[in-house]
Amino acid sequence: VRLSELAAKLGGRLVGEGDPEVFRVAPIESAGPSDITFLANPKYFPFLETTQAAAVLTMEGIESPGKRMIWLPNPYEAFGKAVEILMVKPPRRFGTHPHATVDATAQLGENVSIGPGARIGARVTIGANSIIEANAVLYDDVSVGRDCIVHAGVVVREGCILGNRVVLQPNVTIGGDGFGFAPSEEGYKKIPQVGRVVIADDVEIGSGTTIDRGALEDTRIGKGTKIDNLVMLAHNVQVGENTILVSQVGVAGSTSIGNGCVIAGQVGIVGHLKIGNGVKIAAQSGISHDLPDGTEWGGSPAVPYRTWLRSVGVFPKLPEMRRQLAKLLKREEAKG
Amino acid sequence: VRLSELAAKLGGRLVGEGDPEVFRVAPIESAGPSDITFLANPKYFPFLETTQAAAVLTMEGIESPGKRMIWLPNPYEAFGKAVEILMVKPPRRFGTHPHATVDATAQLGENVSIGPGARIGARVTIGANSIIEANAVLYDDVSVGRDCIVHAGVVVREGCILGNRVVLQPNVTIGGDGFGFAPSEEGYKKIPQVGRVVIADDVEIGSGTTIDRGALEDTRIGKGTKIDNLVMLAHNVQVGENTILVSQVGVAGSTSIGNGCVIAGQVGIVGHLKIGNGVKIAAQSGISHDLPDGTEWGGSPAVPYRTWLRSVGVFPKLPEMRRQLAKLLKREEAKG
Amino acid sequence: VRLSELAAKLGGRLVGEGDPEVFRVAPIESAGPSDITFLANPKYFPFLETTQAAAVLTMEGIESPGKRMIWLPNPYEAFGKAVEILMVKPPRRFGTHPHATVDATAQLGENVSIGPGARIGARVTIGANSIIEANAVLYDDVSVGRDCIVHAGVVVREGCILGNRVVLQPNVTIGGDGFGFAPSEEGYKKIPQVGRVVIADDVEIGSGTTIDRGALEDTRIGKGTKIDNLVMLAHNVQVGENTILVSQVGVAGSTSIGNGCVIAGQVGIVGHLKIGNGVKIAAQSGISHDLPDGTEWGGSPAVPYRTWLRSVGVFPKLPEMRRQLAKLLKREEAKG
Repeated sequence: VRLSELAAKLGGRLVGEGDPEVFRVAPIESAGPSDITFLANPKYFPFLETTQAAAVLTMEGIESPGKRMIWLPNPYEAFGKAVEILMVKPPRRFGTHPHATVDATAQLGENVSIGPGARIGARVTIGANSIIEANAVLYDDVSVGRDCIVHAGVVVREGCILGNRVVLQPNVTIGGDGFGFAPSEEGYKKIPQVGRVVIADDVEIGSGTTIDRGALEDTRIGKGTKIDNLVMLAHNVQVGENTILVSQVGVAGSTSIGNGCVIAGQVGIVGHLKIGNGVKIAAQSGISHDLPDGTEWGGSPAVPYRTWLRSVGVFPKLPEMRRQLAKLLKREEAKG
Repeated sequence: VRLSELAAKLGGRLVGEGDPEVFRVAPIESAGPSDITFLANPKYFPFLETTQAAAVLTMEGIESPGKRMIWLPNPYEAFGKAVEILMVKPPRRFGTHPHATVDATAQLGENVSIGPGARIGARVTIGANSIIEANAVLYDDVSVGRDCIVHAGVVVREGCILGNRVVLQPNVTIGGDGFGFAPSEEGYKKIPQVGRVVIADDVEIGSGTTIDRGALEDTRIGKGTKIDNLVMLAHNVQVGENTILVSQVGVAGSTSIGNGCVIAGQVGIVGHLKIGNGVKIAAQSGISHDLPDGTEWGGSPAVPYRTWLRSVGVFPKLPEMRRQLAKLLKREEAKG
Repeated sequence: VRLSELAAKLGGRLVGEGDPEVFRVAPIESAGPSDITFLANPKYFPFLETTQAAAVLTMEGIESPGKRMIWLPNPYEAFGKAVEILMVKPPRRFGTHPHATVDATAQLGENVSIGPGARIGARVTIGANSIIEANAVLYDDVSVGRDCIVHAGVVVREGCILGNRVVLQPNVTIGGDGFGFAPSEEGYKKIPQVGRVVIADDVEIGSGTTIDRGALEDTRIGKGTKIDNLVMLAHNVQVGENTILVSQVGVAGSTSIGNGCVIAGQVGIVGHLKIGNGVKIAAQSGISHDLPDGTEWGGSPAVPYRTWLRSVGVFPKLPEMRRQLAKLLKREEAKG
């Protein structure tokens, strides 16, 4: 497309001379004269002078002599749209592939695609335009909304519910049994897990993540929440809206997490806690008590983020501190 | 069922007037007059007065005016049985689904169910009543006991053995190659992994967990042990009986873990260690030496649990301690 | 085979009398008179006297009265070869199994095996002798080299590339979308992920591991690198050659890791970092800044390995240090 046309589609303002045709989006270091590129991170500002790109998607007011800019209120979002426009091919659709196994009682909306080897159980409903990829398995009574993508190898167990525009990356497991066992004299007895997993609209879940079904009530993931790879959410966990759970986070049973939180990689949260709205937790932290709205935390067990930063700064000095302390104690003793 | 009938089935004593019919098990806050509920955690005692439940499964001696109780020696176990009786539908059985691929040499017991897309390899044996769900894969020479459930997406590699009543949640991997590579001048050379994974009776394994086959001898999981999601057990690991491994635990090669242990979430254990019986390890701990029977540990690297609790309490005070120490040192210097 | 013949195949020197036939490789404690065994770890030296093995693969110069040795420059590598010769059965080959779904445009090399339920997408190419196991899924435009093994349940998404002799253990996910979302007023907007994953020759990847596709450019894994189970590599990560990533490691987006590194279990590395060549990182460490070539690190956040060792040694003494410090402060105050 012409640059001017792309700028209009993105809702931005083209600054600079000429209106070449562009074909791709590329990183600022390697973009060529028929590519557009993107600049938001100040670390990359020096490339503004040397980039070969046809134009740079960036914030209003940023200029560079002889370079074209497209000024935008949210350049990162616009970058995503530009990739969508220039580079994303529509996914292949199969209708119902002859090697899929679809129960006679399942209800498929318009334009649904079911890949080879996929298994669609009894009474499953799938909304319009949704794609179920090869070898994905939806157990009986699962409900999938409109415009969803369920990738290969995903398993959604009985009765679980996905909203609209939900994306499940490959090998995700939704609705496995929660980890509930009663100690008894003859060993642990399984507590049947009869709740479901209910996932709201616009949720995306990364490869290999597992979300367990509730024991009695449902495990719930709120609208717009994004979950990275290999995350573990236990039975009855409640996650709010627009919350980010980064890779390898683990959340134990019945804990609730609010809206707009950012939980960084490999964090662990114990069970039966209440994490407020807008909470931020640093990578690898361990959370063992409730966290109020808008707070930031770090460490295992976690303390307020600034306290943690200061304390880890002292940690490598412990051996020196111990020597100094021993010296002082010795002198005190000598003095009697 | 009538409440009196349910109390009898659970081996409990019904206390209070009337004998209504009950249909469901529900949480104490939301249970209605045709639901039973359950109380063991003292945190929920205040709900005893307000619950609408037809009856409360609880410990002997607990009462509340005008409320019915079922007194039981182990209310949590009874809760599980009540859910089983009232709420669990028997799983759907397929016989051998026409879209399954079962090798001609496989031997299937009575009432076995093989779902669509499942692959049963050569010389596989499967005991009576076991269920292999859609798209699960059993490689050649696998042996599955009676009354097992192997969920969708599970892979069990060649020669591995599951006892009776074993449950594998979706996307579990049993018997992947152990991580064995010999450094050489041309890079790492793979050491073939020819041991198996042998899983005893009554073991349950959570979604996405991976248990590697032994290098020469077998990786072994003892009777009644319960393993949560996304756990990693490396080659030659030996886990005892009735041990609990919580989510995202990692155990390196050739380590043995005793009976009746509780290893909390995200714990890491290095290779070639001996962890005794009845050991408890706090979440996110890192274990790098043998642990004797009956001990409790915390931290990374782990120290005795009480030592850890006390030390992490001091950790946020490190910056203050450093300032105090610097002040004392300055004064000492001033004194000469 | 005869011992002398085996020694010749392994490039070693047989020391001791007799030349029995051997059938198996077994651990030194349990090997019998028709087994060979292996000794490299000094911890097992005491078994040299008591082993029943027909011969011990070991370093030149190691002897034990009345025992046969095979002296080798690299006994661990030779052990692997011996297991290969004596104990590894060639994998079963299917040609293209009738229950596989292979797109008409896919190109399969000589002697390729495609298991039942596997899905091979459009324009996929697979090199000679490669094995695609049951229910694995290769999306459109995937390229697989020669002599690869792709185990059951693996998913490789569109356009990703595997070199020669690559092994993917069960339930690995290659090419899931990277975790890229632009915050906007209506919530997070997905940034389409249009890069690929490119995996060089001789790479092995453990069960359940997930490697995300690049956002614009490719995620890359270098020649000979070995990755354990349940590892997470985010979009645009670059891993060098002959590097070891142990189980449950997580690496955030755009970080590069050099050649010949060893990253131990459960390590987390934040995004946009440069980890040099030959870097070693202790288990459970957290890395938040660049690491120069040849350095060793430990802790979260990580510090130089020796500093970390010394500091964690002081950690359990913190409560005592605090008491001592308080006492000194009190005395100072008393003195005025």
